[in-house]
Amino acid sequence: MDIPMDRQKQFILSHRVARMATADKLGRPLVVPICYVFDGKNLYTPIDKKPKRVSVRELKRIRNILENPKISIVIDDYYEEWNKLTYVIIHGRAELMESGEEYQRSLRLLCEKYTQYVDMNLSTLNLPVIKVIPDRILFWRAI
Amino acid sequence: MDIPMDRQKQFILSHRVARMATADKLGRPLVVPICYVFDGKNLYTPIDKKPKRVSVRELKRIRNILENPKISIVIDDYYEEWNKLTYVIIHGRAELMESGEEYQRSLRLLCEKYTQYVDMNLSTLNLPVIKVIPDRILFWRAI
Repeated sequence: MDIPMDRQKQFILSHRVARMATADKLGRPLVVPICYVFDGKNLYTPIDKKPKRVSVRELKRIRNILENPKISIVIDDYYEEWNKLTYVIIHGRAELMESGEEYQRSLRLLCEKYTQYVDMNLSTLNLPVIKVIPDRILFWRAI
Repeated sequence: MDIPMDRQKQFILSHRVARMATADKLGRPLVVPICYVFDGKNLYTPIDKKPKRVSVRELKRIRNILENPKISIVIDDYYEEWNKLTYVIIHGRAELMESGEEYQRSLRLLCEKYTQYVDMNLSTLNLPVIKVIPDRILFWRAI
């Protein structure tokens, strides 16, 4: 694993939104916007709403992860000045967490970063958190 | 195919950046930020720089598409007011274009939307354009 350099770490920590790609067992990708926390090693992103029509395990991103844990996340800002463009791509694998100490800790970190999660009582919803274990982090800058 | 509704179409047309996920034949996803144009039916996103160390066909996103044309694109804006969150997810398949009338037309559309491409002489670079043929477009709004 490439150890994340400080600027990578800072970039990941300072952002509030990322886009996460999973793929099902047939290789069909799905990309969605996510909120996340980063503890310096792993990323955590929650399911924050019970799906209306299906159980939470039938949510496409969850089904994908259960079929195929490979995952890719991009964090970037868009600027019209293209020489300012910067992004971080994280490759890794995902695990579903539904209970336990690490699960509880991730909920606390999420509520510290996003007051919105406090307002919606994330910690009482009993919904899974996706843990992303990076095995490669790429930092890209236009110049 | 779900016919894109006007608000979906408007949302896609009015944005300047998207995030595109491909996956290799082993189902390993890759997500990258992209610039794109939408002609009301298909999306086009160019390779706008010759990779430094490899040929353009060895670029990971190109290799993925050649191995597995399935693709997913998300277009979204992040707001701290989560009730404003909106996104469009496009599922489809990708084709590589390297010449021909449609290829030339996509370069013209890209230069019309992004003056940055005019400044970098995109039309003379002879680099491929990825054509994305949607088979499903999902529009999601928090409320």
